[in-house]
This record gives sequence, structure tokens and C-alpha cells, in this order.
Amino acid sequence: MQLEYHCLKGVDFKGHEMEVFRTVAEVQEKCEQIRFSGKSLAFVPTMGFFHQGHLELMKAARKIADKVIISIFVNPTQFGPTEDFETYPRDTEGDLVKAREVGVDIAFVPSVEEIYPEGFQTMVKVQGVTQHLCGLSRPGHFDGVTTVVAKLFNITKPHVAVFGQKDYQQLTVITRMVKDLNFDIKIVGVPTVREPDGLAMSSRNSYLTPQQRKSALCLKKSLDLATEMVSRGKRKADEIKRAVQELILNHPFTKIDYVSVCDPVTLENVDVLRGNTLLALAVRVGKTRLIDNCILSPSGPE
Amino acid sequence: MQLEYHCLKGVDFKGHEMEVFRTVAEVQEKCEQIRFSGKSLAFVPTMGFFHQGHLELMKAARKIADKVIISIFVNPTQFGPTEDFETYPRDTEGDLVKAREVGVDIAFVPSVEEIYPEGFQTMVKVQGVTQHLCGLSRPGHFDGVTTVVAKLFNITKPHVAVFGQKDYQQLTVITRMVKDLNFDIKIVGVPTVREPDGLAMSSRNSYLTPQQRKSALCLKKSLDLATEMVSRGKRKADEIKRAVQELILNHPFTKIDYVSVCDPVTLENVDVLRGNTLLALAVRVGKTRLIDNCILSPSGPE
Repeated sequence: MQLEYHCLKGVDFKGHEMEVFRTVAEVQEKCEQIRFSGKSLAFVPTMGFFHQGHLELMKAARKIADKVIISIFVNPTQFGPTEDFETYPRDTEGDLVKAREVGVDIAFVPSVEEIYPEGFQTMVKVQGVTQHLCGLSRPGHFDGVTTVVAKLFNITKPHVAVFGQKDYQQLTVITRMVKDLNFDIKIVGVPTVREPDGLAMSSRNSYLTPQQRKSALCLKKSLDLATEMVSRGKRKADEIKRAVQELILNHPFTKIDYVSVCDPVTLENVDVLRGNTLLALAVRVGKTRLIDNCILSPSGPE
Repeated sequence: MQLEYHCLKGVDFKGHEMEVFRTVAEVQEKCEQIRFSGKSLAFVPTMGFFHQGHLELMKAARKIADKVIISIFVNPTQFGPTEDFETYPRDTEGDLVKAREVGVDIAFVPSVEEIYPEGFQTMVKVQGVTQHLCGLSRPGHFDGVTTVVAKLFNITKPHVAVFGQKDYQQLTVITRMVKDLNFDIKIVGVPTVREPDGLAMSSRNSYLTPQQRKSALCLKKSLDLATEMVSRGKRKADEIKRAVQELILNHPFTKIDYVSVCDPVTLENVDVLRGNTLLALAVRVGKTRLIDNCILSPSGPE
């Protein structure tokens, strides 16, 4: 299926064409052809409902490789039974227009049945780094992520795959999987894109009421507070966590899922900051679960 | 590492050269080059100690593809704690000579540390078809198999991979994994190779004493008995299983692990034979665990 030409006001379109595929067989053949032709291929897996953060991933991919493929797939197996799979925001047609605008060459938009046909029974499980942070509050989430990403890697056979650093643990888990299963793919992390007031961009921000939207700033504010504490010489993880928790809970509608100060590779808790350390947050604002993170550098910015 | 030229009496050697690699990085690059050159690549994963059964897999691979790669790796994660990992027979130098004789182009012979470096923590798990037959008596065995085979597939990137039908469940599990994870690899099963008296070739046959070796014939004899019963019109799985069990236990040193009459795809038990049905056996002869299988065809041979 070739997406029809859309003429969009004020967009530097340049007549770039994007191919859209719905089936594994077709897109797998296409990607194999690209590899075989000697062109490099970068892959950006997404769940759609694109904001600027997604588009930055695609732009980064554009810079790295000759051809860019994205996938749009809201993966049911990475949602828990009480989570928001059904209500997760979707806008495939709008997404395809945006992707084409930033120069994506191929979009893979499969159905759930195409990815999980009858009889499906295989799981890819990363065991250590999934036992922290979101892995604790979202059991099975990362099994869903690694399984679908392994499938998408085998389908698209990219040289490079691009992920956002906002989902820091996801990036860590995927990096681990790639290393452990010897995927011949380079994983690239792209810095979090933020709204002008600091809120990390997320498809789930669309769930927030105007008042919750204001409260949601507590995540970035608390990262800034922690960064400032470290620059003032604070090194005790407990002290930093207490300050962060207090700041968050001083905002209405908030409930802390976790505040973690941990090793940026193993994700294991750290008591005293020595080298670069991850501060990762998950906070519910109303019913919406938001995450954010930053690297705390006791020796100053990298 | 290039294996030195061996001149073997009576062997049609033709000066065929085989490259031997010890590291993932080197062999992955080599295989990528082969793919990129437009040549087809067939892969035969093995645990070494080659008998004619292994060599037939390599010959089949030779016929299918332009280039043949084998791996020799006794995979510790597919052995249980009380199983024979330490004592599993090994003869890498002899294996390399045999592989080169049948026209193998590349041999990948990694160390355990090369495959499972420090920090390794990922598992590929097929859930349904592993819950029968050997999966019951060897818990975790197939997780070890699927994980290492997924790694080897990503390392060697073959177009085709060749497995023996003697390990019927392994072939089923791998086929399932390839389908579920969208590996772009064709899986080919090669019929079991037998000694002149019918015993299925196995590296573990080397464990048998001369008397046990005689008793071990009960596996093939019981497959033949079942085939004959079906050709005489018997259709009840229980009746066939009872006859098979009786025949096996009439041989000394034998202990039955399982006798299963089941669906050849799902491996679920069958009560009455309708279409092609798998008869699979695992029998201990002394301390040596042997397996064998055949397809029972109520409508006559395929």
C-alpha cells in the first residue's frame, strides 16, 4: 500500500515517498532487499500517536542510515490486565503523514493478528535488569517489550535501532537483549524531548486534565532539584530520594510509584553516588502513570 | 584460524578448505559477507562428536545452499544439573576433519565464555510444545536449546538451518521459535540415520556397554512393531503404547522415560490415530538415555 500524496500547508514536503506495509512477509522482503543493495537501514519501533519525541527518533535515524523504517504497533503483550491497552491513544493516519514529513522511507503497521497469529507461544525474557524500576510495578511488561522487539528486529533486519532515553529501562533492557542474543544491530539512545515547560513528551500526556498537567511538572522539577543537590556536593542516595519524594508529593494528584537512585547499567540501587548514577521516577498524576529520568554526575556534567 | 591440510587415506578430499572461527565477531562478519555476496548459506548447529547422522545433516546442507557453516558447541544450559554435560563426548579435532571432508566451508567453535559472557541474562522460551515428551523429564532443557539456537541464528544469519529428525521435539520447538520470532530462516529436517542393525545414531551411544548396545535395539524394534500394528488396522493409542512398553521392558537394562503417541505438530496426546501421528520414545539403557521416534500413518506410508 502506497500512502496517497498529502499536500500539507507550510510543510517542506519535497515529494518524499513512503511505503506502508501491513504484512510481515512483504516488509521482511523489502528490508532484505535494502540490506542486500548495500544501503544501511535504521529502525524506529513505536506505538504510534507521534509527538516531537518520536519525530526526533526518526530524524536521528535519518542522520545515521541511508533508509529509515518505523513500526507502529500498540503491543498488547506489554500492557498489564489493568493497564490502558484499549484506551491507548491511536492516530495511524496522522502518524503516517508525520513520519513521511520527517523523511521515513518505510512504515510497518501490522495488525495484532499479524504479529501474534494463532498458536504463538514464544517469549524472549531478559532476567536481571527487568527486576527493578518499572519491572516491579509492571510485571511481564518487559517480556512483552523484548519479545515484540526481537520479532521486529528479525522482520526489519536493521543495522541500527533507535530508542528514546525517556524509557531508560527499556533502552537498557533492549541493549542487554541485543548483546545476549548476538543481534548484529547497533542500539542508539536519543535524549528525551520536553515541552517548553520541561514535561517529558509522552503519548500518555494526552490523558492529563489541565490541572494534572501542571502537577506533572513535578517530575522534571525533582530531576532538576536532585541535579542541583549533587552539584552542591550531596552524595547520599537516601537524602536525594527524600527531597525528590517530598517535592513530588507537594504537588496535587500525585502518587509515587518509585523514585530510584541506581547504577545506570545494572539498575541496582546505589547508596552513595560515586560515578554517573541514574535517577529514575515513575509517578501517577491522577490515573496517568508518567516516567522520567536523568543521569546524576558527581564529577560534574559529562 | 585455518585448519591445517590433512591428507586422509581413502578420502576424496579435493583440497577443500574450511575456515574455523572461535569468536562471535569474526564469524558474524564472515557470514554477513557471504549473505551480502549473494550466496546462500545453510547452517548446521551441533554439539560435536560427529557420527554419520551429523555428516548427513552437513551433506543435506551442502545440497541446499552455496555455503555451509556448522557450529560445534556443547551447550551447558541445555543440560540439567544431574545430566552429562561434563562427560559428554568431545573430539573437536576429529570433528573438524570430518566436517571438511563433507564439504563444510566454515566451522564455528566458540568457548562457553564466548557464548555466555559475564552478565548474560536473556532467555528464549517456547511455551507450549516444550511441555510434553523430553520437556517433562528434562526441565529447562528446551529453554537452553532455543536460547543458544536463537543466538547462533543471529551470529550466522543463515538462509536455511538443518536439524535431525531423531530429535523430533527439538525440530518442532525450533520450527515454532522461528515462526513465532519471525526469523527469516527455513528449517529443514533430515531423516534419522541408523546403524546397520537399526539403532539410531547418537553421540550418547558411545556410553553403552556391549550388552546394553544389544538391548538398545528395543527402541527401533518397538517403532517397527507399532508401525506394523497400525498397518494391521490398530488405531487405539493405548493399545499401541502397551505393546511398545512391553517390548521395551522385555529387554534387559531398560527403563522407560516416556512412550508417547501424539500430534506431530502440537505434541499433544492422541487417543485414536486418525491422521499422521508421532510415536516418540525415551528409554534409559543402563544410565544412558536414548530417544527415537517415527510417524505412524493410518492411511499408509506418506
